[in-house]
Amino acid sequence: MRFFEDMEVGQRREVGSFTFTADAIKKFAAQFDPQRFHLDEEEGRKSLFGGLAASGWHVGSVCMKLLVTDGQSQAREAAARGEKVAVWGPSPGFRELRWIRPVLAGDTVSFSSEIESLRTSEKRPEWGIVQARHTGTNQRGELVYSLLAIAFVPRRNANS
Amino acid sequence: MRFFEDMEVGQRREVGSFTFTADAIKKFAAQFDPQRFHLDEEEGRKSLFGGLAASGWHVGSVCMKLLVTDGQSQAREAAARGEKVAVWGPSPGFRELRWIRPVLAGDTVSFSSEIESLRTSEKRPEWGIVQARHTGTNQRGELVYSLLAIAFVPRRNANS
Repeated sequence: MRFFEDMEVGQRREVGSFTFTADAIKKFAAQFDPQRFHLDEEEGRKSLFGGLAASGWHVGSVCMKLLVTDGQSQAREAAARGEKVAVWGPSPGFRELRWIRPVLAGDTVSFSSEIESLRTSEKRPEWGIVQARHTGTNQRGELVYSLLAIAFVPRRNANS
Repeated sequence: MRFFEDMEVGQRREVGSFTFTADAIKKFAAQFDPQRFHLDEEEGRKSLFGGLAASGWHVGSVCMKLLVTDGQSQAREAAARGEKVAVWGPSPGFRELRWIRPVLAGDTVSFSSEIESLRTSEKRPEWGIVQARHTGTNQRGELVYSLLAIAFVPRRNANS
């Protein structure tokens, strides 16, 4: 987890990939999005998706998982180098979530994150506000997912 | 599932409530958002959340589950009355997701959905475009979650 001062607009990071198996798609859907095209192959084929399709909330949750575990491994590496590790604030929400193409059973989606804007907080000068675009791309190179996230990131010398 | 012509701006529907137990919070977090304040009571208490807090993606996914099951029970009731049931299109995404207050272990969140705008699609005249505000309110009446969703809804006489 980096500090605000370590970030630059345009910095991009690959955070990992995930294969959406039929089992994983159905398991998530049964719990959180029990629509027929997320639960059954034949219903998926008959739908506009053209196959058993992952819930959009599943795609977003998998992206979150990969962002968190990537951030944690970056933090461990920084700590091992003896660097100070930033503790990020909670996210207030996000903008412009788009499910661009269906994610079908068997698809492998690779996620990345790119910094779109950086500004300091007027109300809370010890924090910076980062807007990052998270995207998911399938094994054919097609963009399937895009989200503009907002995060509060601590400034390096806030408490010095 | 209603047709475009049956909808009016301002229509509001309570879709159900859910109690976020510590177990459910930790189970979701382990799979999709393994941050310490979502996994451990003590870490939650030490964090800005002030307690074991549900992942924002968990809150959003639970809201989705309640919207889907409410829509399905409405569709069953309409079919039982002999009415034609609309088949909604896939959602292209949404705007303005906000996690307004933490959802802590033991909190019960009631979700509702209100229609904010309605317009017909120029490109696809057989569909209407609905913007609906989904919100979650805790047992103290505090707003904790808000999402502006976009959906394609079929027009009643599109194929007649």
